[in-house]
Amino acid sequence: MERILLQLSYNGADFQGFQIQNEGRTVQYELERILKRMHKDFIRIHPSSRTDKGVHALMQYVHFDTTLSLPTNKWQHAFNSALPDDIYINEVTKINADFHSRYDCVGKAYRYKVYKAPHRDVLKRGIETHITETLDTRKMNEAAQYFIGTHDFTSFCSAKTEIENKERTMYKFEVIETDTGYEFFVIGSGFLYNMVRIMVHFLMDVGRGKRQGSEIPAIIAASDRTKAGKTAPAEGLYLEKIYLSPEELTQDIPKGTTITLKPTRRQLTQQS
Amino acid sequence: MERILLQLSYNGADFQGFQIQNEGRTVQYELERILKRMHKDFIRIHPSSRTDKGVHALMQYVHFDTTLSLPTNKWQHAFNSALPDDIYINEVTKINADFHSRYDCVGKAYRYKVYKAPHRDVLKRGIETHITETLDTRKMNEAAQYFIGTHDFTSFCSAKTEIENKERTMYKFEVIETDTGYEFFVIGSGFLYNMVRIMVHFLMDVGRGKRQGSEIPAIIAASDRTKAGKTAPAEGLYLEKIYLSPEELTQDIPKGTTITLKPTRRQLTQQS
Repeated sequence: MERILLQLSYNGADFQGFQIQNEGRTVQYELERILKRMHKDFIRIHPSSRTDKGVHALMQYVHFDTTLSLPTNKWQHAFNSALPDDIYINEVTKINADFHSRYDCVGKAYRYKVYKAPHRDVLKRGIETHITETLDTRKMNEAAQYFIGTHDFTSFCSAKTEIENKERTMYKFEVIETDTGYEFFVIGSGFLYNMVRIMVHFLMDVGRGKRQGSEIPAIIAASDRTKAGKTAPAEGLYLEKIYLSPEELTQDIPKGTTITLKPTRRQLTQQS
Repeated sequence: MERILLQLSYNGADFQGFQIQNEGRTVQYELERILKRMHKDFIRIHPSSRTDKGVHALMQYVHFDTTLSLPTNKWQHAFNSALPDDIYINEVTKINADFHSRYDCVGKAYRYKVYKAPHRDVLKRGIETHITETLDTRKMNEAAQYFIGTHDFTSFCSAKTEIENKERTMYKFEVIETDTGYEFFVIGSGFLYNMVRIMVHFLMDVGRGKRQGSEIPAIIAASDRTKAGKTAPAEGLYLEKIYLSPEELTQDIPKGTTITLKPTRRQLTQQS
């Protein structure tokens, strides 16, 4: 028995999200369908993160266990030749049996993309969020820093979130003005249901002058979803990076930041 | 009775083409559906160009006749608020009753977009064509010039083309190297079924060193579709501009080029 780790990308526009649902296409279904055909048996995959309907991933990990003995390049080819054109396997690694794509994940980076134009652009449909107005980048950046650190993010996640511990650590949050609009880039220990989209919507309201960054501490303290405003649309959101080791994470966050770790698990071992 | 001209854009990825088919979504259906609801009656629309399945339009025109008397901004709002997010009406104009979006079209510009990357990019799915190899831009540009002028393009259109007169004039053809790949930009009096995609595929083969630009005159002379090679995928193709007057066309093509016109029709009159 071998444990295989896939690193993949997908375009979320035509998926009902990562996880299998009663209806509609999901990334999990597409992957498990191929594994079932190869094994003549059901094989469960385990992702690092369950992205929502419409959310994209530039880097996602899943692992599974197999009785097949194939070199990594054959695995990659088997998937990519059978997958639809909105999923792509970037890398295949053989990993130790005690590695787990979710439990060994120590952090994630998300990017949210907004384009500013008088009219919506049909070619950006499903892959960026449209706004018509100019936002104040400096104010948004200042406001974003209030999220840094360890907080209970009850106010900034969907009221439907079932997970009990809503404490997460934000390591880095920056708002970037691009040629065509704005990008919101955040690295954290983990994110609750809709959390990035609610934080981004709040920051855009700051950029429009409707809210103040200095309100954030009180909103966090209130532990009340209704205080934080709406949720930005899914189409602008990209899971950009998943950190499977503290070393990788350390490289991408400000020097001297303390990393919040779950009970340490064995490091990822590459055997090719 | 008023004649209304719409200028629109659409993302072709999820359409079976412009024209109504027995099955699947079409741009024509989406527009006529809205007109039917507004008029309680069937209203036929007439496009400047019928794009194929998967082909995008940055600028397309359609006209229709209506008994409703609405200002142009109300028409625009009525469409844009009811259309799906892969079609957008950029502009609405009231035109003379003898103007016709197809017969008064004197030229069209198409762009074909190719990205070069070791792996396919799921975020470019449906909107650009993927290649892995470097192409010779200079050779492709030189070859493209063989298409300039008036020729019978039987060899460079689908064998299924039903139209009898296959003579068309190419005014400008350039191949541009971009940050991420290549673009093929062509302006002509008109284009036959699959014609841009067959010319682009041939030019890419020139860029790969498989074919020579100097073969083009003999291929044109042969009037034989089998001589020209394959058809590039639809997803990279954009109808970029439609010329409704010789004046507009003249501005975009090399100075001194003679324009081939159909029997002249009345000019577009803007009354807003």
